[in-house]
Amino acid sequence: MRRQEDRALQARIGHDFADASLLQQALTHRSFGTPHNERLEFLGDSVLSLALSNLLYERFPQLSEGELSRVRSNLVNQQALAELAIGLKLGQVLRLGEGEVKSGGRERPSILADALEALFGAVYLDGGLAPALAWIARLYQPVLVSLNPQTLGKDPKTLLQEWLQGQRLPLPVYRVLQAQGASHAQSFAVECEIAVLGITVPGSGNSRRLAEQEAAKAALQQAQQRQANKKAS
Amino acid sequence: MRRQEDRALQARIGHDFADASLLQQALTHRSFGTPHNERLEFLGDSVLSLALSNLLYERFPQLSEGELSRVRSNLVNQQALAELAIGLKLGQVLRLGEGEVKSGGRERPSILADALEALFGAVYLDGGLAPALAWIARLYQPVLVSLNPQTLGKDPKTLLQEWLQGQRLPLPVYRVLQAQGASHAQSFAVECEIAVLGITVPGSGNSRRLAEQEAAKAALQQAQQRQANKKAS
Repeated sequence: MRRQEDRALQARIGHDFADASLLQQALTHRSFGTPHNERLEFLGDSVLSLALSNLLYERFPQLSEGELSRVRSNLVNQQALAELAIGLKLGQVLRLGEGEVKSGGRERPSILADALEALFGAVYLDGGLAPALAWIARLYQPVLVSLNPQTLGKDPKTLLQEWLQGQRLPLPVYRVLQAQGASHAQSFAVECEIAVLGITVPGSGNSRRLAEQEAAKAALQQAQQRQANKKAS
Repeated sequence: MRRQEDRALQARIGHDFADASLLQQALTHRSFGTPHNERLEFLGDSVLSLALSNLLYERFPQLSEGELSRVRSNLVNQQALAELAIGLKLGQVLRLGEGEVKSGGRERPSILADALEALFGAVYLDGGLAPALAWIARLYQPVLVSLNPQTLGKDPKTLLQEWLQGQRLPLPVYRVLQAQGASHAQSFAVECEIAVLGITVPGSGNSRRLAEQEAAKAALQQAQQRQANKKAS
């Protein structure tokens, strides 16, 4: 049974392990025993980072270093990794301690994300960078395709301004409605108004900037939605 | 002249660039013009991380993931990179804007560290991971050799405790002398006493733990110094 599952996983990864013990180790959570997958995760984290850096560098020649870094960090967060792990049905083949299994460890995002990183490390150790890069490129293909280089890394206020300019409309007005709290724990309530469209939306956050970004994001959604409705009617 | 310098640098790196424009770009600071080295730095940062992860993973099979991460981050900080860049005489071949040159840009740690990372990226793009890994292994060889796997990643309190146990001495006593400030900005003053050696040293920090670590570090230094003196006399 174990063998069959492992073979199916290797098919999904697209790499046949020369050293099957590396695959086993990558799938072993520390609650199960040693050798577990934490050291492989350390390695795999760097493998993933280089693979994505390489993919993003080539795919987005116009993005700056700062924009590339922001995109990369969005792709490697725990939630993103856990979703990919679920797509690979990784939870079902993990070796977990009994307690972890009972408390839902097979669905826990941190365990899934760590195991996926460990698998990146294991593929790298077993076959070098090429198979790891090929697999990661395939895994992230749907995500990379849907990334929009026009909006990547731009904040909502900039996006709203650019969209309005594209429509030859006047710029939005931001107003602070409320600011309270001492300097280390402030909270701001603002609104963003696009008078010509009759749109006024609120936003809040720990800084004026964050509150305005939130309002701008909602305002842009409303404006675009309204335009789509107008076209449809 | 430029050619000669570049050839000398390539000899120090141990890689002949097939695409010389990559080498030029890596050596070009944004103050000089475009294409500059910032996107290569983005890539090179990941190349360095994977190379060091690989080296540390193999060299220290007994270190945990957390310890490996701590060691790696010590090796990739700006100061460490700038020192390596100075060893490569990188500052002399950088292409900087006039203003940067006048204000000492060739010696600025951030510029040197960034350019070195960009060079890692350029070697990777030009020749793949193998030459980058080989070069980074050579660059970090002196540092890696001097790393002590016995003490790596261990905090001062643990090191002090282990040292005392090795000497068959009783454990140290920590005392909080002062704690002040609200929860977000506390400061602690503590002392660490090794009564049997007549050593009492202070420590301070934003948390009790940090204050104790500082005191433990100083106490261990005193204890070891005293022992060395005793042996010498």
